[in-house]
Amino acid sequence: MNKQKLSTQPYKGARDFYPEDMRARNYIFETWKKVCRLYGFEEYDFPILEPFEIFASKTGEEIVNEQLFSFEDKGGRKLAVRPELTPGTVRMLAQKYKELAQPIKWFMIGNNWRFEKPQLGRGREFYQLEVNIFGEQSAAADFEIFSIIINIMTAFGAKQGQFELLVSDRRLISALLNDTLKLEQDRQAKVRRMMDKRSKMQKEEFLASLKELGLSEKTGEQVELFMQSTMETLNTVIPVEILSENDGYKTIIDLFNLLKAADLSKYCRFDPSIIRGFDYSDGLVYEVFDKNPKNSRSIFGGERFDKLINIFGDFDLAATGFAMGDYTLLEFLKNWNLLPEFKTETEYFITVWPQESQSTDSGDYFDYAQEIAKRLREKGKNCITWLNKNTKIEKQLKYADKKSILYSIIAGEQEFENKTVIIKNMQTQKQETKSLEDFFNTLY
Amino acid sequence: MNKQKLSTQPYKGARDFYPEDMRARNYIFETWKKVCRLYGFEEYDFPILEPFEIFASKTGEEIVNEQLFSFEDKGGRKLAVRPELTPGTVRMLAQKYKELAQPIKWFMIGNNWRFEKPQLGRGREFYQLEVNIFGEQSAAADFEIFSIIINIMTAFGAKQGQFELLVSDRRLISALLNDTLKLEQDRQAKVRRMMDKRSKMQKEEFLASLKELGLSEKTGEQVELFMQSTMETLNTVIPVEILSENDGYKTIIDLFNLLKAADLSKYCRFDPSIIRGFDYSDGLVYEVFDKNPKNSRSIFGGERFDKLINIFGDFDLAATGFAMGDYTLLEFLKNWNLLPEFKTETEYFITVWPQESQSTDSGDYFDYAQEIAKRLREKGKNCITWLNKNTKIEKQLKYADKKSILYSIIAGEQEFENKTVIIKNMQTQKQETKSLEDFFNTLY
Repeated sequence: MNKQKLSTQPYKGARDFYPEDMRARNYIFETWKKVCRLYGFEEYDFPILEPFEIFASKTGEEIVNEQLFSFEDKGGRKLAVRPELTPGTVRMLAQKYKELAQPIKWFMIGNNWRFEKPQLGRGREFYQLEVNIFGEQSAAADFEIFSIIINIMTAFGAKQGQFELLVSDRRLISALLNDTLKLEQDRQAKVRRMMDKRSKMQKEEFLASLKELGLSEKTGEQVELFMQSTMETLNTVIPVEILSENDGYKTIIDLFNLLKAADLSKYCRFDPSIIRGFDYSDGLVYEVFDKNPKNSRSIFGGERFDKLINIFGDFDLAATGFAMGDYTLLEFLKNWNLLPEFKTETEYFITVWPQESQSTDSGDYFDYAQEIAKRLREKGKNCITWLNKNTKIEKQLKYADKKSILYSIIAGEQEFENKTVIIKNMQTQKQETKSLEDFFNTLY
Repeated sequence: MNKQKLSTQPYKGARDFYPEDMRARNYIFETWKKVCRLYGFEEYDFPILEPFEIFASKTGEEIVNEQLFSFEDKGGRKLAVRPELTPGTVRMLAQKYKELAQPIKWFMIGNNWRFEKPQLGRGREFYQLEVNIFGEQSAAADFEIFSIIINIMTAFGAKQGQFELLVSDRRLISALLNDTLKLEQDRQAKVRRMMDKRSKMQKEEFLASLKELGLSEKTGEQVELFMQSTMETLNTVIPVEILSENDGYKTIIDLFNLLKAADLSKYCRFDPSIIRGFDYSDGLVYEVFDKNPKNSRSIFGGERFDKLINIFGDFDLAATGFAMGDYTLLEFLKNWNLLPEFKTETEYFITVWPQESQSTDSGDYFDYAQEIAKRLREKGKNCITWLNKNTKIEKQLKYADKKSILYSIIAGEQEFENKTVIIKNMQTQKQETKSLEDFFNTLY
C-alpha cells in the first residue's frame, strides 16, 4: 500500500450519508416539513457560517468557550460555524420583522456543529428543525408550538406513553428563589444551575450542593420540595399571593386549558425540574422526553425567548419555539422500532439486449431501451437503463436484483421486431409480454 | 441607537433565504431531485467540513491557495469548508465502492464556500447539484449524464437556443500538443492554461501569448486553428493517423452517435476551446452555456475524472459527471424569464370570532377554530389559525390577505351554534355558508 494515500473516513464525529442513510434522513426531513406546512409555517434558511459575535453574547458559556468551531477568514473577519439555529433566526427576523405580517410562523432545517466528544446519539455535527412563532405573546402561541411537537411525534408513529412533553416556566423559579426565598441575585443563578443538574443527582447530593452554595438546611429543603411539586402542590412551597401574580404560573394554567380542550394534555406534564441551559430562555421552558424505561432522557426542547432579539436592536417581539435534532430523534425512532423500511425510489430497470447476440441488422437495442426509458420518464416513472451494449442479460438482472428494483423490462430480438416488451416482476419472478402501447397505457 | 447592537446582516457574500427566496430555492432543488430520480440516481451527502488534505492535492491551485476557508479545530486537526463536492464524493465512494453494484449512480445537493470577491451571480457560498456515474467506462455513461443535463434544463422550461452543451476532450489537446506539435511536458501545461483563456482574448493577443511561451509562429497558428476547428476540420490540424487512434476523438464520435439517436444532439456542439480548470479532469470535458446574446457565459460544467479516486488508494474506477450551481442557474432562469411565480403553500386561514362579542356562554370560538383546523390537517390541508381570542375579524382577514391565502373560514356566533362555517374566497370576495360536514366532504 502507498503510505501517502488519504483516509476515506469523514472528519471525526461527522457523518457520511450513503443512499440508505439518506433515505432515513429524507424521511425525517420530509415529515418535519409536512407537519410544519400543515400549520402554515414557512421555510427559511441562513448561512452555516455566521459572524462570531451573534453567538458570543447569549448562546451559553459552555458552547461558546468550549464547543464553537470559530476562525478568521482571509480578511481577518471572525466567523463561527453555527452551533444552533436560534440566534441566526433572530438576526434574520430583526432585519425584516417590520415588513412581515405578525404573527410570523417560520421553520427551517439546518446543520449545526459543536466540538464535543462523539458518543452514541450525539456527534460533532447534527441537523435541527427550528420552529418558532414571533409576535404573539399569549399562551395560544405556545399551545400551537406544543400541537406541532405532538403532531410531529405522532406523524412518526409515536404513541402516548412513548414520549412526554415536560413543561415549566423560568418565572416560577424566580417566584421561588427571588420572591419567596429572597436569595441574592448571583446566588440565584448558581442555585438555578444546580437545579438544572438535579435529575442527574441523588437527593442527598443535591441538598449538600445547595448547602455548599450557602443555603440553610430549611431553604435547601424548600428548593427540593419545589423540584418535586405538581401544579396542585406548588402553593405549599410558594405562597398563593406570589403564585397568583406570577406570569409563569398563569401561562402554564392557560396553556393546559388549551391543551385539554384539544385533547393534547395527555402528552404533557408540568415538571419544575425543567430549566434549560440557554441564557436567552426567559419564560416557558419545555423538553420532550423519551419514556423508554431503559433509556429515559430528553430528546429536544424549546422555550420562550422574547428578549433575544434585543442583541440586534431595541425591539419588542414575542418569541417562542423549539429545536429538534435529527440525531436524538433517530435514536428514539430506532429504540421504539418506528423507523419504516425504506425502498428504492426506482420502479423499473430496463435491460439492453446484448448487441453481439444480434443475428440480423434489425436496429439498435440500446436505442430501444432508451426510447422505453424516455416514455416512462415522461410519465414520471423512475427507471434505470443498462449502459453497456455487450453485457449478458443475467448480469444485468443481477444488478436490478441487488438494487431491489421491482420490475425489469426485457426486449430481445423478437420483442424488438414486434415492438413489444417482457415485464418481469423480480419478486414473484412472473413475466408477461405486452405491446409497447399496452404497457404504457396500463401504467397506473 | 445603542452602538453595541449587532448587525442584522449575514456574513458578506453569503445569503439569507427569506420564505420567498426559499420557495425559489426549493423549486430548484425539487426539480433537480425529481430529474435525478427519474434516471434512478440515489441521493447521498457528506459533511460540509472535510479534512483539509482531500482538497490540497487535486482541486486546483487557485481554489486551495486563495479561496479555501480552512482552520484548525480545538484538537489541532486541519479542516476546510468544502469548496466543491467532487473530492468528498470520491472519498465516500473509495470507502465502499467494492460493496456497491456498479455502475453506481449518485447525486447530492450541497453547500460550498469559496473566499471570492462577491459579484453578480456569484457569492462566497453557493449550492451545487453533483451528479456522477461510477464504474462505466463507455461513452454511454457520458451520454446518460448529458441526457440528465438536458432533461434538467428543459424541466426548468429552457428551450433549444437558450442554452448549449459544449464538449471537448482533454485527450484531443494531448493529441495536438504532445503527439502532433511534440512540445515538452511543462510547456504543454502552460499552453493548455493559455488555451483555457482563449475565449477572453483577441486572436492577436492569444498568438502573442503563445509566442511568449516559446512557440514558433507556425506552431502558434496551428494551436489557434485547433481552437477554431469542428469535428470535420480537426484532421486539418491533427494528422488522421493520430486522430483515429485518439480515445478522446473516439469518445466524442460515440457520444454524438448516441445523442443523435435520442434526438439530443441539437442541444450539443463540439468546441475544442472547452478545457476546464480542475486538475482531475482527464477525458471528456463539457460546459453548458447561457446563449443569451447580452450575456453569453458558462453556467456549469463537468468531466471525466477516472483518476481522482487514486488519491485514496490504488483503485480503478471510471467516473464521469457534472456539478451545477444554484447561483448561476438562478441568474439563467431570471434572464430568460423562466422562474414561475410562487404561491403560498397555505390554503386556508381560520379566523377566531372575538370572544368579547360573544353574547351567550355558548362555548369557545378558539376551540371551534382549532377543531376545524385539526380536521383540515387530517385531510392534508395546510392551514393557519388565528391565535388571539380578542382580535377584530377585519384585522384577521387583513393578515390572510397579506399572506395571499386563498380561503378564509369564518365562524361567528350563529355558525358556531349551527355547526356551520362561512367559506370566503379572498380573491373573488365571494362567500358561502356550509355545514361542517358538507365542507369537509366536498374538499377535493
